Amino acid sequence: MEMTKIRINSKRLEATIHELGKIGLNSKGGLDRTTFTKSELAAREWLKGKLKELKLATKVDPAANIWAKRTGNEDNLPVISFGSHIDTVPNGGKYDGALGVLIALEIMTTLEENGIETRHPLELVSFSAEEPNPFGLSTFGSRAVTNKLRKEHIVDVKNSEGQLLTDALTIAGGSFNAFEEVVRSPNEFSAFLEVHIEQGKRLLNQSIPIGIVTAITGIYREVITVHGEANHAGTTLMGDRKDALTATSELILALEKACKQHPSNEVVGTIGKMNVSPGAANIIPEEVELTLEIRGKTREDIREVIAELETSIKTICNTRSIKLDRNVILDQDPAPMDETIINAMKQQATTLEYSSCLLGSMAGHDATHMASITKSGMLFVPSIDGKSHCPEEESRIEDIDKVANVLLHTILQLDEDLDN
Amino acid sequence: MEMTKIRINSKRLEATIHELGKIGLNSKGGLDRTTFTKSELAAREWLKGKLKELKLATKVDPAANIWAKRTGNEDNLPVISFGSHIDTVPNGGKYDGALGVLIALEIMTTLEENGIETRHPLELVSFSAEEPNPFGLSTFGSRAVTNKLRKEHIVDVKNSEGQLLTDALTIAGGSFNAFEEVVRSPNEFSAFLEVHIEQGKRLLNQSIPIGIVTAITGIYREVITVHGEANHAGTTLMGDRKDALTATSELILALEKACKQHPSNEVVGTIGKMNVSPGAANIIPEEVELTLEIRGKTREDIREVIAELETSIKTICNTRSIKLDRNVILDQDPAPMDETIINAMKQQATTLEYSSCLLGSMAGHDATHMASITKSGMLFVPSIDGKSHCPEEESRIEDIDKVANVLLHTILQLDEDLDN
Repeated sequence: MEMTKIRINSKRLEATIHELGKIGLNSKGGLDRTTFTKSELAAREWLKGKLKELKLATKVDPAANIWAKRTGNEDNLPVISFGSHIDTVPNGGKYDGALGVLIALEIMTTLEENGIETRHPLELVSFSAEEPNPFGLSTFGSRAVTNKLRKEHIVDVKNSEGQLLTDALTIAGGSFNAFEEVVRSPNEFSAFLEVHIEQGKRLLNQSIPIGIVTAITGIYREVITVHGEANHAGTTLMGDRKDALTATSELILALEKACKQHPSNEVVGTIGKMNVSPGAANIIPEEVELTLEIRGKTREDIREVIAELETSIKTICNTRSIKLDRNVILDQDPAPMDETIINAMKQQATTLEYSSCLLGSMAGHDATHMASITKSGMLFVPSIDGKSHCPEEESRIEDIDKVANVLLHTILQLDEDLDN
Repeated sequence: MEMTKIRINSKRLEATIHELGKIGLNSKGGLDRTTFTKSELAAREWLKGKLKELKLATKVDPAANIWAKRTGNEDNLPVISFGSHIDTVPNGGKYDGALGVLIALEIMTTLEENGIETRHPLELVSFSAEEPNPFGLSTFGSRAVTNKLRKEHIVDVKNSEGQLLTDALTIAGGSFNAFEEVVRSPNEFSAFLEVHIEQGKRLLNQSIPIGIVTAITGIYREVITVHGEANHAGTTLMGDRKDALTATSELILALEKACKQHPSNEVVGTIGKMNVSPGAANIIPEEVELTLEIRGKTREDIREVIAELETSIKTICNTRSIKLDRNVILDQDPAPMDETIINAMKQQATTLEYSSCLLGSMAGHDATHMASITKSGMLFVPSIDGKSHCPEEESRIEDIDKVANVLLHTILQLDEDLDN
């Protein structure tokens, strides 16, 4: 078959989406496939089974990332790698992450059944723990590969049940002892490509099936602990209180205001995780621990919101006699995608006669980190109603089919163009 | 010995306070003796052992309340009962509740060693589950005894770990099947008396060792569930959000404002327990569940705060497109204490040459419910720094000694005066 005529099999792809979408399914119709849980381990086994059927050389690295390699005619060339992740948030959907891995799997299958040989070796990857997880380390696998997460960062990390990350890692096939060997060198890669759902409404609103990502948002996260004073909720008059929760409420509204008032509407701030202690109806809250997140297209946008927030924090602490600890846990700059790849994607969408558009990614992805060691690019699939991280998360198979074909032909084009 | 010269043994009382204060002690120096937990069951065994040493007729009723009876010369008279509770809040102190039971124990011991005979039978009581607890039912034991809590209220109640309250009750010596038999009739009692720590600073600030309670605050509690929309914290712009947590923050501050602005400074409002779901750093909160509490000296004060709050709730729901469920779980009117008992307490304090004062109780107590079936009275012991429900909770043994002696002699006076 002529190379340009090759298409992925969307029926087969649809079937694998639904097959993997059953692993971790809960009673609310969502997926509980948080990293290193039983169901996530089952999903890994499922994927490894599929890769085995394809006879790809599969290995699990010390960060428990799954890599599957297809040889190239010039096998000493650096690899063209593509993939995403299969873990989910609690009660998440079956497209976020999984779609990128399943499209990679479908592309490998399509190449195989059409007997296509490439110059470069191709490598499918499923990164560990992309989503925020009970160990507090998101984009775990891609950060490890790109040397941003090292032994010292994971040595004593535990989840809330006291399980050591290093133990969970071992169960998933990783290794703390060999963790240094997870790092891959820039000269091992020619490119990294990732397909992901948009998780917003921009493509859907414009009826465009293909989103070509120009840059990935910066993400800033800190854990804030607000220290008040526990006391009896009846006998402590309003004026005598140091209530950690009322202070926190002011902080939450201050963050919201700072983001809403910022000139860029692509600056967002969220407090998604919060714990109130001691947590009894008749005790004034002593301590609130929360994770605060700010995202923006530029580093400056994020800094401006932080500056606003700091002003509010000072006022809150002074007026309420409250103390507050701040601990920055993530400060990731925005990551631009590679121009050569963006152009190849544009060109292939045009050739395939699919409409496409350029857009920024407001979600972080494994490609953020891969971009620090190799040319990287991302394609977005429209999300129905813009929903994600929930059971209703969905993308249309017609759109998925188009994006998968653009990725396939982008890989084939890069295979021709790169390393000549 | 002449009756008026009898005094409790404060050394012995101090020893029992420290002995019981070791059961449930955690690494922070606080007590984790939440109702029906392992440590609370151990405290029950400890108490039953002490009652056995005194050879009192001890029984555990279907609500797992512990009663220990000392016969009177006119044993067909209704009992004079006194006691409190031995469960604690999480990370609480060793005085709240326990002190009232230990003073009752000390009084029984003092009467015994002095060979005092009373007309009325006397009955020590340790009520089950006075504090808010994982089963969501505070003042459990006293409500059961006074017919305010029946089988239908407890039949399917579970804690967050899925344990049935009825099962926990059985382990503690109670019985769901016989639960109807827990109810005691008004004509079984002549009076109920309770000693408790003040949990405020009023006595301490005036250097008065004896507080005589005139009325117990009303307590209103509701569980509110705020329903927003879970969505991705990056891709959902600020204007498109239905964030359950920012909406809740406005509600928390509205309650605080309504209480602060109320003309009575003895109106207080607290949100002490709150849970945010799904609880991940990068998901906009979908749901917040919280327990809201309002206390006041009169029913009207409480109603006024609720009315203010309702106005705020309407605005929040409209401006944020948020829905909200409200479920009233407690609506307890203020309870006045009995005049005869108040006067006996005043008189005994005067005779013993201790200064005393009258004050309202801003905390709810088992006496609130006992007051609905019998003449009831309460004595308060000063709390150091006004602290309670925390490891630092403490009262001075000199003050405890005085209050215990006032209680002893109040019992002896009521024994003479009542039922003639």
